[in-house]
Amino acid sequence: YSILECFPDDIRLGPSKFTLKRYLYQNNREHVFHGRRINVFQGEKLVTYNTQTVFQKYISFSLKVSKEAKAMQHFGDSPFAMSAFPNETDPIGINTGMFIPTLEQQGTEEQKAKWLSLAYQEKIIGTYAQTELGHGTFLRGLETTATYDPKTKEFILNTPSLSATKFWPGGLGRTANHCVVVAQLYTQGKCHGIHIFMLQLRSLEDHSLLPGIENGVIGNKFGFGTNDNGYLKLNSVRIPRENMMMRYSKVLEDGTYIKPENTKVTYGVMVLVRSFIVRGAALHLAEACTIAIRYSAVRRQSELTPGGIEPQILDYQTQQYRLFPLLSTAYAFHFASTNMTETYERISKQIEAGRLDQLPQLHALAAGLKAFTTYAGSAGIEVCRICCGGHGYSHASGLPKIYVCEVPGCTYEGENTVMMLQVARYLMKCHRSKQQGKTLPGFVSYIGEPMEKNSRMDDKVSFTCIVKAYKHRAARLIEEAAKQMQSFIQSGSPAHEAWNKSSVQLFLAANAHCHLFCVQNFIDSIRNCKVDSNTSKVLNEVCQLYGVHGILENLGEFMQDNFLTGQHAEYLQKKMLTLFDVMRPNAVALVDAFDFPDHILQSCLGRYDGQVYQALYDYAKMAPMNQTEVHSTYYTHLKPLMSADSKL
Amino acid sequence: YSILECFPDDIRLGPSKFTLKRYLYQNNREHVFHGRRINVFQGEKLVTYNTQTVFQKYISFSLKVSKEAKAMQHFGDSPFAMSAFPNETDPIGINTGMFIPTLEQQGTEEQKAKWLSLAYQEKIIGTYAQTELGHGTFLRGLETTATYDPKTKEFILNTPSLSATKFWPGGLGRTANHCVVVAQLYTQGKCHGIHIFMLQLRSLEDHSLLPGIENGVIGNKFGFGTNDNGYLKLNSVRIPRENMMMRYSKVLEDGTYIKPENTKVTYGVMVLVRSFIVRGAALHLAEACTIAIRYSAVRRQSELTPGGIEPQILDYQTQQYRLFPLLSTAYAFHFASTNMTETYERISKQIEAGRLDQLPQLHALAAGLKAFTTYAGSAGIEVCRICCGGHGYSHASGLPKIYVCEVPGCTYEGENTVMMLQVARYLMKCHRSKQQGKTLPGFVSYIGEPMEKNSRMDDKVSFTCIVKAYKHRAARLIEEAAKQMQSFIQSGSPAHEAWNKSSVQLFLAANAHCHLFCVQNFIDSIRNCKVDSNTSKVLNEVCQLYGVHGILENLGEFMQDNFLTGQHAEYLQKKMLTLFDVMRPNAVALVDAFDFPDHILQSCLGRYDGQVYQALYDYAKMAPMNQTEVHSTYYTHLKPLMSADSKL
Repeated sequence: YSILECFPDDIRLGPSKFTLKRYLYQNNREHVFHGRRINVFQGEKLVTYNTQTVFQKYISFSLKVSKEAKAMQHFGDSPFAMSAFPNETDPIGINTGMFIPTLEQQGTEEQKAKWLSLAYQEKIIGTYAQTELGHGTFLRGLETTATYDPKTKEFILNTPSLSATKFWPGGLGRTANHCVVVAQLYTQGKCHGIHIFMLQLRSLEDHSLLPGIENGVIGNKFGFGTNDNGYLKLNSVRIPRENMMMRYSKVLEDGTYIKPENTKVTYGVMVLVRSFIVRGAALHLAEACTIAIRYSAVRRQSELTPGGIEPQILDYQTQQYRLFPLLSTAYAFHFASTNMTETYERISKQIEAGRLDQLPQLHALAAGLKAFTTYAGSAGIEVCRICCGGHGYSHASGLPKIYVCEVPGCTYEGENTVMMLQVARYLMKCHRSKQQGKTLPGFVSYIGEPMEKNSRMDDKVSFTCIVKAYKHRAARLIEEAAKQMQSFIQSGSPAHEAWNKSSVQLFLAANAHCHLFCVQNFIDSIRNCKVDSNTSKVLNEVCQLYGVHGILENLGEFMQDNFLTGQHAEYLQKKMLTLFDVMRPNAVALVDAFDFPDHILQSCLGRYDGQVYQALYDYAKMAPMNQTEVHSTYYTHLKPLMSADSKL
Repeated sequence: YSILECFPDDIRLGPSKFTLKRYLYQNNREHVFHGRRINVFQGEKLVTYNTQTVFQKYISFSLKVSKEAKAMQHFGDSPFAMSAFPNETDPIGINTGMFIPTLEQQGTEEQKAKWLSLAYQEKIIGTYAQTELGHGTFLRGLETTATYDPKTKEFILNTPSLSATKFWPGGLGRTANHCVVVAQLYTQGKCHGIHIFMLQLRSLEDHSLLPGIENGVIGNKFGFGTNDNGYLKLNSVRIPRENMMMRYSKVLEDGTYIKPENTKVTYGVMVLVRSFIVRGAALHLAEACTIAIRYSAVRRQSELTPGGIEPQILDYQTQQYRLFPLLSTAYAFHFASTNMTETYERISKQIEAGRLDQLPQLHALAAGLKAFTTYAGSAGIEVCRICCGGHGYSHASGLPKIYVCEVPGCTYEGENTVMMLQVARYLMKCHRSKQQGKTLPGFVSYIGEPMEKNSRMDDKVSFTCIVKAYKHRAARLIEEAAKQMQSFIQSGSPAHEAWNKSSVQLFLAANAHCHLFCVQNFIDSIRNCKVDSNTSKVLNEVCQLYGVHGILENLGEFMQDNFLTGQHAEYLQKKMLTLFDVMRPNAVALVDAFDFPDHILQSCLGRYDGQVYQALYDYAKMAPMNQTEVHSTYYTHLKPLMSADSKL
């Protein structure tokens, strides 16, 4: 049952056929942007398009990531698959999103020649079988084994316990006929840690399961209803030696194990997938803001002036307080994700050329931004939903689906707390390097630098003061965490125990570091934005709100060593309220600029034409239960209940 | 499809048949509580029961609210209905939860005699039709009309516009045959505001709709899948004059309108329902904590000691940081809800006796705690879910259902922001009274009192210092909000504009006030708790964590005027980490004490016996899609896709 059906045909085709309604003018959208043309960010440029090409553009916008991601345009059986089921996942998605990239990065030339073209053409459909019932993010704990048998030159795959059962991979339940399996490699009586193996699951003739394989879906989930996430048990399944991904590590015919030159190169796919996740968080939050802000411009409620007409709820300061910071966050994450993609592309080239020195920085950036954006993105989507009142709870709003699509990002591809602690580990390394007199590269260079003890912020709250405050906070928390670790070690704790006892502090340090990145990158990005002066002014306001609100939300961390004072807090609070007033007339235009067609939002509340009540009513009318006036349960349950003897 | 089916029979009967597994001993539960007996709070007493009576007790625990609520034991067609579908709502629930209480409070003796017994016996099934497509919390904006026609002595009910359509009432779609309708009363050409009318919707013979009534379900929702929330359009539906609820207001035969003596008495049902919501938030958060903490004692992951066995994830400081404050919040809300119930009962008696002076305080308490606990409760449930990693996202965890059941509490029965601003309005009134030299009653007496300028907190972080800090913060924010309002008014803003321009500040003040209530009441409640000294020590620790963590989460608000300093913050941070260590051995016992049987939790992760992986696997095996090895979509979609010509 799809909400799409409640949109009449002319609306389904996208916003180009809409009439511009009066309420939109009331929001003065044309003060900033320009009537009904569509404005889209491409990289850091704001570009105006004709509306005819909206769909095509949306897809290239979402997928403008890297060469691997271009494969995703062949996602499903149509380049338009993504717009056919927005905010759902495709069971074939893992084939293009993870199976193919794994082959490309881990396969030898022979292996790529054998499988890659088949996978691209969907002659075989693969998935990525890593997570087990008992293990997720901690890969070394995986229990599945691949034991080499030199007699037959085969690996024997086993899930030796219940908790070794592969669990969760997308498309694994009933769709995939191949997968790459992550398993502990045993050869010549020794375990060499986890490696990746190609496994055919099902017959290409009739899709029946091959011997030794038990597999199915894992059952109902919060979301991902369109995906057959599955489980997999392996009982002595034999695969040829050539099915081990051997670009880096190798097992020779006699069972001799050859180590890879550098184990870190295998991080590539992981970093790429995490960059997709950051992009996803930015897009999902932008969608939710679009729905909530458009609806708040349509919805009228209560009174501001006694006896006056009911105002748009977007005029309430409390509504602005909840929505505008999220709008600014959506913009901040857009730019963060763009930066991450570019960094990935740049560093990837270096890695291909054998230079790995930038990899730790990239790895920490990917892990940190993945955690930071998915936490804030999913919590923000729920705030948007709750800001739509009761109707936000209906699937007609489109918001519940966006939430359940975004929130697992906090868990998959590396649990967020673990990710933050990986960032912290990198920061502690940087801190030690600095103490040893080394210069730190790029973005982390602020760590351990001498800094002002007190902010010079005044009531203007300049970008310079904002960035200095975030730098000071992150540097202080990193310093604190390092000190705390040190003090535990000095009092006799082993390093691992000191780490665990300091991990809340380490988490907070990593979080502050990621926050600083998003703030500084937002400021840098809009400085480089090629837009007209009006648009630039608006983007500056949005950016300033992001910085100001972030300080106020975490005020204690900025005040704890008196870097900011109560007086500064007052400046910031006043500035925030001023920014709400300034942003109010541009708010609808700012979400329109994300350029989501109605077809993608699938929301009665976020419709471009503002006809929300008619859409909600139409949605209700179409519910299957409304097809008969008296429901069958009346005869089976209600009537017997009503006619039963007194129950008192 | 119910998760219940994956529990074998002996488990479905509740915890009494479980064996005590070794992992439970590892958590030293018996250090605090006593083996396998069940400990339950009743009011403020911790009582130990035999396990045989768990179900009976659970129900009385949940329903020990008030005389009206006792009707809920007749909820559905069995006193066990609640345990038959935990965390779902019953379409007949509104009959007992709102229809009957409305009749009891708003009906005349004749009206009660006519309908009440029928409703109790479910000979008629009613709902409460208030919310409209275009209006929720702002009742004065409702558009439905009831126009008196003295010729026929009838009211004519109309929903005169699309946005007047009644929307959302539970059970309205296909279940209810009666409802009370909230409508604008027109008589003798004049509107007298909203009043309540009894309306029969459907025939008691065959359940067909009566003339002039259009009605159906509103379509799919985030949760509440078991409830037929509905819509209702009324086209000149005539009802007898006697169908207006006339206990307070009246319309005489000739159309003369008689005003009620005091309009505030109608708040009774609202306050009662909000007290149910607070109780619900406490219970839901307690359920989620039970699942997450039990699972965290079973789940092992990663390593703390190099090469050592994988620790229970509850041993990670970051996991404690996320879960233990929520556990303390669940306890805090339990006591808050108990207090609220008692206050309601006490003040209700006064109201019945005609004394309304305590009503504003009760109304503010109900509105504030409703908002404060539903915000914190629903956000907390999601943290618990995310703490369970990937498996938390499966419906097998039971957690998504708890969340979607709790989170609409932020919206229904008064949108939370509006509720908080109602509290703020009461606080501003108190502040003015105090300035005028009056003494403030009861809990609000701290407002405007002279206070210490700086905290005397030391590293022990005493309850006295904690309460003083919360009082100081709330009093300061109330003062700030009042000043801000005043300054806008002095610079020429009309009062309503000054209010809106100060509403973020007002919101923060109300929030701080509610937070103070929860902290202080928690401390008072455990002081009065009749428990042994070991249990008392544990409850003190839980309570201290609630106070300490709440300050750290809102540190800026405590530091902004230097009441707390950086040094105090350090004491608090150290205390928090110490409390994590102290609480760790008792954590599982503390959730066991909530006494939710497996049957209620419906969670593979929160099972009392800790057999989570087997339960997840069993749950997966039972999924309908697993009944055939090859799914039908292989023939309809996948095979054609795989055999299509190259798409590259």
